[in-house]
Amino acid sequence: MTLKLEGLNNELENKIINYRRDFHKYAESGWTEFRTASKVAETLDDLGFDLQLGQEVVDQEARMGVPDQEELAKHYQRAKEQGASQKYLKEFKGGFTGVVATLKNGEGPTIGFRFDMDAVEMNESSSKEHRPVKEGFASINENAAHACGHDGHTAIGLGLAEILMKNKSKINGKIKLIFQPAEEGVRGAKSIVASGVLNDIDYLYGLHLGLGVESGKAHPGATGFLATSKFDAIFTGQPAHAGGNPEKGKNSLLAAATAVNNLYGIARHSQGPTRINVGQLNAGTGRNVIPDRARLVIETRGATSELNQYMYDQAINILEGTAHSFQQDLNIIAMGGAKSGESDKELMDKVFQEASKITELEHIYEKPVNMGGSEDFTYMLDKVQKNGGKGTFAILGSDIASGHHTAEFDFNEKDLINGVNLLARLALTS
Amino acid sequence: MTLKLEGLNNELENKIINYRRDFHKYAESGWTEFRTASKVAETLDDLGFDLQLGQEVVDQEARMGVPDQEELAKHYQRAKEQGASQKYLKEFKGGFTGVVATLKNGEGPTIGFRFDMDAVEMNESSSKEHRPVKEGFASINENAAHACGHDGHTAIGLGLAEILMKNKSKINGKIKLIFQPAEEGVRGAKSIVASGVLNDIDYLYGLHLGLGVESGKAHPGATGFLATSKFDAIFTGQPAHAGGNPEKGKNSLLAAATAVNNLYGIARHSQGPTRINVGQLNAGTGRNVIPDRARLVIETRGATSELNQYMYDQAINILEGTAHSFQQDLNIIAMGGAKSGESDKELMDKVFQEASKITELEHIYEKPVNMGGSEDFTYMLDKVQKNGGKGTFAILGSDIASGHHTAEFDFNEKDLINGVNLLARLALTS
Amino acid sequence: MTLKLEGLNNELENKIINYRRDFHKYAESGWTEFRTASKVAETLDDLGFDLQLGQEVVDQEARMGVPDQEELAKHYQRAKEQGASQKYLKEFKGGFTGVVATLKNGEGPTIGFRFDMDAVEMNESSSKEHRPVKEGFASINENAAHACGHDGHTAIGLGLAEILMKNKSKINGKIKLIFQPAEEGVRGAKSIVASGVLNDIDYLYGLHLGLGVESGKAHPGATGFLATSKFDAIFTGQPAHAGGNPEKGKNSLLAAATAVNNLYGIARHSQGPTRINVGQLNAGTGRNVIPDRARLVIETRGATSELNQYMYDQAINILEGTAHSFQQDLNIIAMGGAKSGESDKELMDKVFQEASKITELEHIYEKPVNMGGSEDFTYMLDKVQKNGGKGTFAILGSDIASGHHTAEFDFNEKDLINGVNLLARLALTS
Amino acid sequence: MTLKLEGLNNELENKIINYRRDFHKYAESGWTEFRTASKVAETLDDLGFDLQLGQEVVDQEARMGVPDQEELAKHYQRAKEQGASQKYLKEFKGGFTGVVATLKNGEGPTIGFRFDMDAVEMNESSSKEHRPVKEGFASINENAAHACGHDGHTAIGLGLAEILMKNKSKINGKIKLIFQPAEEGVRGAKSIVASGVLNDIDYLYGLHLGLGVESGKAHPGATGFLATSKFDAIFTGQPAHAGGNPEKGKNSLLAAATAVNNLYGIARHSQGPTRINVGQLNAGTGRNVIPDRARLVIETRGATSELNQYMYDQAINILEGTAHSFQQDLNIIAMGGAKSGESDKELMDKVFQEASKITELEHIYEKPVNMGGSEDFTYMLDKVQKNGGKGTFAILGSDIASGHHTAEFDFNEKDLINGVNLLARLALTS
Repeated sequence: MTLKLEGLNNELENKIINYRRDFHKYAESGWTEFRTASKVAETLDDLGFDLQLGQEVVDQEARMGVPDQEELAKHYQRAKEQGASQKYLKEFKGGFTGVVATLKNGEGPTIGFRFDMDAVEMNESSSKEHRPVKEGFASINENAAHACGHDGHTAIGLGLAEILMKNKSKINGKIKLIFQPAEEGVRGAKSIVASGVLNDIDYLYGLHLGLGVESGKAHPGATGFLATSKFDAIFTGQPAHAGGNPEKGKNSLLAAATAVNNLYGIARHSQGPTRINVGQLNAGTGRNVIPDRARLVIETRGATSELNQYMYDQAINILEGTAHSFQQDLNIIAMGGAKSGESDKELMDKVFQEASKITELEHIYEKPVNMGGSEDFTYMLDKVQKNGGKGTFAILGSDIASGHHTAEFDFNEKDLINGVNLLARLALTS
Repeated sequence: MTLKLEGLNNELENKIINYRRDFHKYAESGWTEFRTASKVAETLDDLGFDLQLGQEVVDQEARMGVPDQEELAKHYQRAKEQGASQKYLKEFKGGFTGVVATLKNGEGPTIGFRFDMDAVEMNESSSKEHRPVKEGFASINENAAHACGHDGHTAIGLGLAEILMKNKSKINGKIKLIFQPAEEGVRGAKSIVASGVLNDIDYLYGLHLGLGVESGKAHPGATGFLATSKFDAIFTGQPAHAGGNPEKGKNSLLAAATAVNNLYGIARHSQGPTRINVGQLNAGTGRNVIPDRARLVIETRGATSELNQYMYDQAINILEGTAHSFQQDLNIIAMGGAKSGESDKELMDKVFQEASKITELEHIYEKPVNMGGSEDFTYMLDKVQKNGGKGTFAILGSDIASGHHTAEFDFNEKDLINGVNLLARLALTS
Repeated sequence: MTLKLEGLNNELENKIINYRRDFHKYAESGWTEFRTASKVAETLDDLGFDLQLGQEVVDQEARMGVPDQEELAKHYQRAKEQGASQKYLKEFKGGFTGVVATLKNGEGPTIGFRFDMDAVEMNESSSKEHRPVKEGFASINENAAHACGHDGHTAIGLGLAEILMKNKSKINGKIKLIFQPAEEGVRGAKSIVASGVLNDIDYLYGLHLGLGVESGKAHPGATGFLATSKFDAIFTGQPAHAGGNPEKGKNSLLAAATAVNNLYGIARHSQGPTRINVGQLNAGTGRNVIPDRARLVIETRGATSELNQYMYDQAINILEGTAHSFQQDLNIIAMGGAKSGESDKELMDKVFQEASKITELEHIYEKPVNMGGSEDFTYMLDKVQKNGGKGTFAILGSDIASGHHTAEFDFNEKDLINGVNLLARLALTS
Repeated sequence: MTLKLEGLNNELENKIINYRRDFHKYAESGWTEFRTASKVAETLDDLGFDLQLGQEVVDQEARMGVPDQEELAKHYQRAKEQGASQKYLKEFKGGFTGVVATLKNGEGPTIGFRFDMDAVEMNESSSKEHRPVKEGFASINENAAHACGHDGHTAIGLGLAEILMKNKSKINGKIKLIFQPAEEGVRGAKSIVASGVLNDIDYLYGLHLGLGVESGKAHPGATGFLATSKFDAIFTGQPAHAGGNPEKGKNSLLAAATAVNNLYGIARHSQGPTRINVGQLNAGTGRNVIPDRARLVIETRGATSELNQYMYDQAINILEGTAHSFQQDLNIIAMGGAKSGESDKELMDKVFQEASKITELEHIYEKPVNMGGSEDFTYMLDKVQKNGGKGTFAILGSDIASGHHTAEFDFNEKDLINGVNLLARLALTS
């Protein structure tokens, strides 16, 4: 039986390339995807999807690494000025920039597709050799650049939506398109999971462009996701004049220094690689004042969620004990996190099978990619798997101009339509 | 009015010199003064004093730095073999080697005199030039030598008892002679205080021989006692094979190392000198085993009790916090302590006045000695002063052969009878 | 014999009050006193003094805590715009803002007077109740306020210069007026000393307004200066990806943390109070990068120069050892310093005697003030005393509106002329 | 072609069992194998081998973890009393307990066989159920028990010697039998290598009994040896009275504590597992004395020699830096060490082939055993391989009564003769 996809044509391809370029130009970093999410919502609404927006899909408590209110307000205002749709914008106010669109037909399983929307916090190259500059869609926003391909993911999501609507009758069950904020820094997925929108998913698909795989090739899944916890620890003590009354101080800098020494000393684990780093320490005010505040910027990692948890638990213990030693208040702020995980064999086989039918794809690997890094898709994967569902994180190859997270990153827009094609097949045949 | 002391004669002088030599030969260190206390009790009982012994005057909980049961038993057995009076010995079993003797006549204030009985934990010189060796009364006990003069203090106490009994009719009120164990390491006085036997004291006198003052001279009191806390901290964690399962260990050595770094870092105090020292750290077993036990031998000091308390509180806080950081059990064992303190002007004037009447004393200073060290007499002084009483710690000069706490220490026995004379005068005229 | 001072009149008083208000309004902080020094130089030149300027009196190597070139250039430009005398300004370029003016007549000793010119790095109050605001001379410069009275000192110096010139014939010997930059943070005096301009001084006078002494009162000298060293330590290591290649990093943050723990643990000194503080620690860049740079902002103190030197030497040793442990480059940058010191009795008697002749001063203390803080005048005092000369640091009382170094600090301008009177007497009678 | 081994009979089997039981009963731990080595030398001499003894085969400088002179003398005396051969004993005096025996015939390669002779430092079980007790050959020496099977290895070595001599004409080349001291704690092999006796080896065989492999089975080689360095670090500073002159101390305990914190903090390595442990720390004397000596008992490990070297280099660096920080003398004492390593395929094939011919061996694995621990045979292996030779470390299975290094360890003596058989075949056919 051959699947005939209505609407998968040049017109759609042009449309999704335009989407991508629009998102690219108005790049928005994590939790500030106000304009992007508004455009996504507007498009999906126009197509006829049922929408859930903002706090319906983003749990406030579970968000990590959210910018402060002032920053959020500034970017909200920028989104407004850059043409965000007013109708939807207000739903995202305060950094709840998530969109979930649902389409149902007949009876059958619930299939989820995840798209991340945020840009990297960096400036895009302004070199004239850089294609986005040459063709006029380089980021015009300070400290925000689509240097990882999420603009492409979002465009594919919108293309998929259009195809699905055009082929609605072929759907058996429920389709959920999940547009997620703040994947960079692994900050957003946890809050989407916490909102409950993944609770009914039977099959979950994530997709990433590039990652070292060339255009025309694909991997059906991924393995070797590193679990990680990213958090800040703030010690608050009491200042005192270092000459006049040193005994009255409760020295936060000294507490932080002790914690640092002990954090790096957490015992190695026999079951696999672990990591810890204190990337920043900032403490103190005047030279002659006993410091009453110190901020540590920390991350732990582990080859598995258990190994990362071991590192995290030990770290918290040390921070707590040190706070006691130096009579400090301790504030731990979650800034990001991801789990370890494995794509399910069943869905990888499915992806392999459907991808193999796409003539534009010349080579489909049977094996998953070994990530060796972190992705917060793992929070979603873990949720679905714990509920008895299946998931996979496929890689759609794309020739890139420069490495991910570099100023001159760009991908091959020809690959976008193949992404739509693949996901549509998975949606309509699962 | 002249005080005529019955019995202050050559015979008594010889008797107290013999007492001193007996205690010196059978030297017993802190909490093991079984034979010494028995002899003291026997002598005082024979003289007709009311006695309180052992646990009546030594509070079990308040004792510090007590040797273990095996050590105590060994020394108890030695005391038996060295002629301790069986009748009293059993009262002191388990290290309750205190004696308080009371004598009452007429109405008047309660006057206390404190004598410490313990030897230093060291070996006495065996040099033929050393007078105790030449004259046959050098210590025959291992690791116990009267190198501080407490043998002389105890002998003075017994001489005083005899004079008081002979002059009982001149007493107006109550006299308490307090024979204390374990002054070395400042371990014993606290438990005497805790037993309550000082609760009714109006005037309290302590006396020390030597301390850099020559024979024939005396100071009426002392100032500048350093407050100190001596304690051990034991971390208990969990061992693990350092190669095979390092993550299973709870590293006591690492905890101890962290505590050491932080203890020395306790902030200086603006109100006066403070000190901290970790004199010993012993931790661990095999090279390839994560250490599950560490003992820290610690002392804090302060120019005042408040300053010492500051140091102690900070230290405990650090030890507790560190125990939390490394998931250790923490055991703090009090090993000794002393307070700061000042002799009362009123009693110093009294001592000055009475000492000035003793023709054998050629020079009495008006000012107190500045101790610059610790004495657990301060616990008693503090108790009496808090109850509204007065106290002083007088220094009776004595030419010494070598410094206190050295192997060749010896004092001039001629000074003992002057000590009896002085204290008797204070007892009968206060 | 009565000294008759020509020119000590209302006109001069008004003139020095105007000087003071001018310096106050155009407040300049340490090493940026471009306009102030230019005005001082111009005035002294007009009066006929021999001038030494800039690098002649400020040794480049011995300067401490100098702002960076960009900062210096910005303030230089500001001075130009605020009316600095172009003729002299260029001499001070690059932060060499010192002026020494010499006047010679007859034969006799060389007498030095020191005036500090810098403002505090803080903003002045903008309250309408604040007199400088009400009367229009509050600082118009960001982060620079005369909140310590150095504007008054400089004005007194110019008043003294005018009197001296008018009474030149009464001078026997040589007078040197030393206008010093950067006393705040104890940064400037050392470089003046290093230039050699104090080498020939026989008598040296410093003077400070206020310091808790009321208008109409004065102290002839000061004691209890705390010695201090202020310095930054910078560790430079090597960055590495904390997940990918932790072994390739040379962790500056970890080095700094270790140093902090050890710096606070420097042993207390038996000879007197000492202090150490790490007021700031800033290290690291990204959360997942092993930090390759850390800056520690440190100060040591001691009751004497020897005690401070002990602390400093120990600190340097620790920093060096830690650099070795973690394979870091270490850069120690001197940021300030002062010595301990004592005013000479001979000069204090002289000040007492001359001050007592001034009818506007109602009470002259015989004793020096106990400073309990640091002043870099001590570098000059030390130099003169080591050469066999004498020095004193007198306090001229003044009612102040608010404490030194507070935003609403102001002093009583009536006291300025008394300062001129006193110093002129010392100059003409020493 | 079949190899016919003269003398491989019951008589020999009984003889080697008796050897084994004799060594077992008079167990001697590392560097004190005086009696054992004497017996070995005597037997080999009687057989007609050329001998190299003591310092000829044990390089003094390269020895690690040698007991002190007193300990050595005590055990030397014991060996004498327990019947050591006087003729050879003196060669081993001072702990040079190595024997190398050489036999040459015709032309051909040089083949080495290594046997370790030392017992474990522990007491053997005295349970009546323990076979060595029942049959009267349990260790009669305190703190020395053959709980690892080295008694068996030595016995096999002597059995091999006898067979080789009886089949001398079949030898083509040179055979070296290397009897090594102190394998426990990986202390002895390095000194054998340093003596040069392995310089001419073309093929090197080591063999170990048991190691989890059952009787009748064998592995032809081993892999996964962990590299390790075992060393002590001693800090020597300066004592001082902690109350009186804390500034005069150079605190060794504080130095050690700092080093401990930093040693555990050595960065994890991306290329594989690493370990560090401080198994013991002992420092200090009196509670009130600043400690002037501290000993750290340390080990590093790595999956490869390079990884272990990384750990060791970092550790030394930290110890040196810390010594500087605290003005300590630092003494590093090598206590043991082993390299990583791999058996050569060529020799494993050879072992497989020859072992397969022994009918008493029912199963020969083709793959090497994964050690997961350390063996100082690796020093020899490394030397031979670096010279262009080959080596392997074969495992001869044996049913054991209890795990290696436990008090009730015992192996199946039936396996010894198979060991002789296998090694003889390797010697005569290589």
